[in-house]
Amino acid sequence: MIANDSNTFLTKVSTSVSTSVSTSITREPLSGSKKIYISNDSGSFQVAMRQIELTPTLLRGEGDSAEYEENPPLRVYDTSGPYTDSDIEIDLKKGLPAYRKSWIEARKDSVELEDFTSDFTRQRLADDENIEPFENKPKPRKALDNKNVTQMHYARQGIITPEMEYIAIRENMGRASTPQDQIAELTASGLPTEITAEFVRKEVAEGRAIIPANINHPECEPMIIGRNFLVKVNANIGNSALGSSIDEEVEKMVWSTRWGGDTVMDLSTGKNIHETREWIIRNSPVPIGTVPIYQALEKVNGIAEDLTWELFRDTLIEQAEQGVSYFTIHAGVLLEYIPLTANRLTGIVSRGGSIMAKWCLAHHKENFLYTHFEDICEIMKAYDVTFSLGDGLRPGSIADANDAAQFGELKTLGELTQIAWKHDVQVMVEGPGHVPMNKIKANMDEQLEHCFEAPFYTLGPLVTDIAPGYDHITSAIGAAQIAWYGTAMLCYVTPKEHLGLPDKDDVKVGIITYKISAHAADLAKGHPAAQARDDAMSKARFEFRWEDQFNIGLDPDTARAYHDATLPKESAKVAHFCSMCGPKFCSMKITREVRDQYGTGSEYAKNQKEVEQGMQEKSIQFLDQGSEIYKAEYNAPQKNS
Amino acid sequence: MIANDSNTFLTKVSTSVSTSVSTSITREPLSGSKKIYISNDSGSFQVAMRQIELTPTLLRGEGDSAEYEENPPLRVYDTSGPYTDSDIEIDLKKGLPAYRKSWIEARKDSVELEDFTSDFTRQRLADDENIEPFENKPKPRKALDNKNVTQMHYARQGIITPEMEYIAIRENMGRASTPQDQIAELTASGLPTEITAEFVRKEVAEGRAIIPANINHPECEPMIIGRNFLVKVNANIGNSALGSSIDEEVEKMVWSTRWGGDTVMDLSTGKNIHETREWIIRNSPVPIGTVPIYQALEKVNGIAEDLTWELFRDTLIEQAEQGVSYFTIHAGVLLEYIPLTANRLTGIVSRGGSIMAKWCLAHHKENFLYTHFEDICEIMKAYDVTFSLGDGLRPGSIADANDAAQFGELKTLGELTQIAWKHDVQVMVEGPGHVPMNKIKANMDEQLEHCFEAPFYTLGPLVTDIAPGYDHITSAIGAAQIAWYGTAMLCYVTPKEHLGLPDKDDVKVGIITYKISAHAADLAKGHPAAQARDDAMSKARFEFRWEDQFNIGLDPDTARAYHDATLPKESAKVAHFCSMCGPKFCSMKITREVRDQYGTGSEYAKNQKEVEQGMQEKSIQFLDQGSEIYKAEYNAPQKNS
Repeated sequence: MIANDSNTFLTKVSTSVSTSVSTSITREPLSGSKKIYISNDSGSFQVAMRQIELTPTLLRGEGDSAEYEENPPLRVYDTSGPYTDSDIEIDLKKGLPAYRKSWIEARKDSVELEDFTSDFTRQRLADDENIEPFENKPKPRKALDNKNVTQMHYARQGIITPEMEYIAIRENMGRASTPQDQIAELTASGLPTEITAEFVRKEVAEGRAIIPANINHPECEPMIIGRNFLVKVNANIGNSALGSSIDEEVEKMVWSTRWGGDTVMDLSTGKNIHETREWIIRNSPVPIGTVPIYQALEKVNGIAEDLTWELFRDTLIEQAEQGVSYFTIHAGVLLEYIPLTANRLTGIVSRGGSIMAKWCLAHHKENFLYTHFEDICEIMKAYDVTFSLGDGLRPGSIADANDAAQFGELKTLGELTQIAWKHDVQVMVEGPGHVPMNKIKANMDEQLEHCFEAPFYTLGPLVTDIAPGYDHITSAIGAAQIAWYGTAMLCYVTPKEHLGLPDKDDVKVGIITYKISAHAADLAKGHPAAQARDDAMSKARFEFRWEDQFNIGLDPDTARAYHDATLPKESAKVAHFCSMCGPKFCSMKITREVRDQYGTGSEYAKNQKEVEQGMQEKSIQFLDQGSEIYKAEYNAPQKNS
Repeated sequence: MIANDSNTFLTKVSTSVSTSVSTSITREPLSGSKKIYISNDSGSFQVAMRQIELTPTLLRGEGDSAEYEENPPLRVYDTSGPYTDSDIEIDLKKGLPAYRKSWIEARKDSVELEDFTSDFTRQRLADDENIEPFENKPKPRKALDNKNVTQMHYARQGIITPEMEYIAIRENMGRASTPQDQIAELTASGLPTEITAEFVRKEVAEGRAIIPANINHPECEPMIIGRNFLVKVNANIGNSALGSSIDEEVEKMVWSTRWGGDTVMDLSTGKNIHETREWIIRNSPVPIGTVPIYQALEKVNGIAEDLTWELFRDTLIEQAEQGVSYFTIHAGVLLEYIPLTANRLTGIVSRGGSIMAKWCLAHHKENFLYTHFEDICEIMKAYDVTFSLGDGLRPGSIADANDAAQFGELKTLGELTQIAWKHDVQVMVEGPGHVPMNKIKANMDEQLEHCFEAPFYTLGPLVTDIAPGYDHITSAIGAAQIAWYGTAMLCYVTPKEHLGLPDKDDVKVGIITYKISAHAADLAKGHPAAQARDDAMSKARFEFRWEDQFNIGLDPDTARAYHDATLPKESAKVAHFCSMCGPKFCSMKITREVRDQYGTGSEYAKNQKEVEQGMQEKSIQFLDQGSEIYKAEYNAPQKNS
């Protein structure tokens, strides 16, 4: 659902077909960064992170006599996988290493199947005209009969999986340096001062967080979506009916994760949809989500009324055995809600929602996703696919926000959440859409109440309809707010929303914009690791360390290009002034003078300290004397007279 | 102050000098729009607005048998002045017509002076090497002795000025079509359902709103800044020390107002600063603001400690007699607050704030803007210049937000507000800066409390420090929130903030981004005229009226270009599908089916209506019978059995 309106990173026109190893995959590390690996306590695995190297601060002097102070490197959460590690060889035909395979096997609750369960998959594999098969396609893995392989199931048994341990290290990064006052604040607010594996387990067990990690996607680096963790961002990709090469498809995924996409939804359509997805999953370090009804609709040539449960079921199994980690399922579009949309300004704008509405109207029957919901749960728990309960009736305009159709569906999504949880199946719930700022909070509150704190996953929301061409911004405003209120993952919107298909630049702008919203929410929520990056940036800014400013930022390349457009010379990057005030007058320089005169270590500060100490001594004396204000000795103590 | 950090629209390098009538001024109306004029009741003046023409809605059929329904044109607030009216001839050498001159003269409380009061002005006029004088420079006008010409003074006398009447018409636009339920909401919330001239007067009298309208800028179209009116946006322009031609300077102002800049701050530096400002003011349809300390610093060759009250006073008079409508004055940077900034992460980042801090430290004396504040008030009321009380100690990083220095200064700005009001001088108060989302509300609350509801004028705030290159977005998130909470005007930020000098595209992006924040706040605050534009957009979107979508948007040119990049053919602009789903499956089409089946006029709706009517009849009967629930007749009424 979310997937639909938010335009996908589709290839516009492409006819080239290639199975050769890619040369067009973006590989270099981000500017100023290198990949580092942190071992867990037992040394059984390593967690990948990005480390930004910083230059030293000039304390005084210049040239040979200059004195410097080191700045420790900054570690940041990294979604880009091995592609940004120059030491790792990538072969798209082989796919990424199956990091999680041994963990999954060790649990002894799943088995590698001899063949694929889905009829469609078997047909595709047998099709000689299939031009782009993934030759190293692994055999599918499935839970043993009566076994449940979801992370929620383990969590509820009290089991801490390696995935949970991995996530704790990943999310905890930077917390070691949390200042004492912030720790006190956290403790008071009930938030953990440290993310432990046990905390991860508990959040998953209680449904407040999900770990999308299909057992058929062992290449994926474990990540978590929940409001007591870092806010995540999803990027949509997908090829068009015109087809595209493998390189292009994988590059879209690599490009999206390079800039911070935490998950990727593959919304491909067309003939090679199965194969495209295979190439993406085998090479993806992040969980992949889909909207299976899109592929199901392709299978019935776009005629919604021809959809059947059996066909849909086969599609779910097809995708689950490929390794898709979450499915958008529009099971809340009930027959009774459809009339509620009739007098809306913009009706039903969700593609999945309108497919199901069309089916319901044509058959005058209840939505088969709803009537077969428990059957779907059985599939989900056999592979650990997470529900992303689609909001098929979300508003498509400010006028339709928070109406009866939207909130009716939300309550149904809450009922479905409880059914899924009965099966220990993980759930997140999708949210709007187009909502004015004054109605955003109600969306979060209603969702928390009616969906029992299952993670919320929202598209924007867009806070106005009047800015086509800038809907990454109209939606980033709403996204920052709703994430602060508690949304766990944000689905990005690009500048081309409502207008056309985004190109590579649009995708990058969409992701960076959403990383801003997510990070602003982390800051506002008091995530202890969040502000370290802001502080490092501001210190670099104050000290005119230009290269560090570029590298600490979300998009070093753009920041550097903008700087160079005004002051292109290399020397300007070490100059102790900026383009705003010029060399003659500099507000930063004056602050330095203030600091020399009044800062820590100054005569002023020492005097202040003495005064304070004097006051404190008086205070102690006062307390010693029994805190009697009007005692003559207090007003004129001999010691300090 | 605000002016400083938010980078200005400076010309990077320009050597051309020209006094010829411009050929480079952007003149054409915005796409799909025309200028219209609405007369006041007495017919004594006309208010300019922009009218967007819309195409009709296709109801049914095609070709010759197609049936259409007209869509009324949409009127929107217009800041662009005569430049977008093709019928008006523009001559930069003459400047715009002095619309307000007769109003000002009719008040008989001011007089045209024989010569300029400022020594500096007289020197410049006598300077033979002055290469770009404005030849039609008007004589300055000043209040008669003991007279006060501020709009606040009139308002407090109970006088409704033509400026107030003009503003009421301008702000009221679109309210006539306010739906009944929204009127009820407004009434309940205490907001006016209609903006009357009397309401404008009252808001100005009570200090909750300002009308920046120097009597020496009669060319300006009256506008209001206050939280019970539309949220306004300021754009910064200014030439650099390298100089630029007249055409370029005027074009910057025209370009800024074309995209929605409600006021423009001229932050020019360099040799021809006086002349540049003259050209801008004479040709500007919006109020011009400045930071006089910048020019004063130029006059002492950039050496802050050489500043004197006398020199500053002459600068104020120089600018007031040119027609500047508001001055940023950093009178709240007190000696006692300076030490509070010493241990900040980023010290004092405001240029004006650091100039004054430097002066205070060098002389170890109290800020002369503070000690001479009543002298400044005397100047302000003689020309009607509004105070924009600068926040010289605003935070420059997330780490420094809401600290003792910032809030200490804010309280002083509150004291100064009351002093200004004692003189009937108009005041707005400047605000931060860099503030995480969770600390934004406190800024608004503190400002309302300590500054007695004087309008707040904020830069952003930026909600994170980590995205150089995207600070128009980091700040738009904060700006939308603070405007919703009550900020009256937002100072724009461009993508080049912190990095370099914005070019024309950056300025446009900055303004459009801030128009989004302002409009989102208007929607959230329930401004009755705001949602009409969203609804018109959404209706056009739902009906695939592509050209209307482009034209209703804040930036028709970009929207059209994005659309054409995917579906360039002219036919695609009338196609009843979009690039997202393609021609085969269309969610909008399905909604039409739902509407046919369940919408107004459908059998379903008629049945629903009958059911409702039946219920209502029962209800009336019930009331007639004395509202006794357990009466047998109610449970089985004969009439409806």
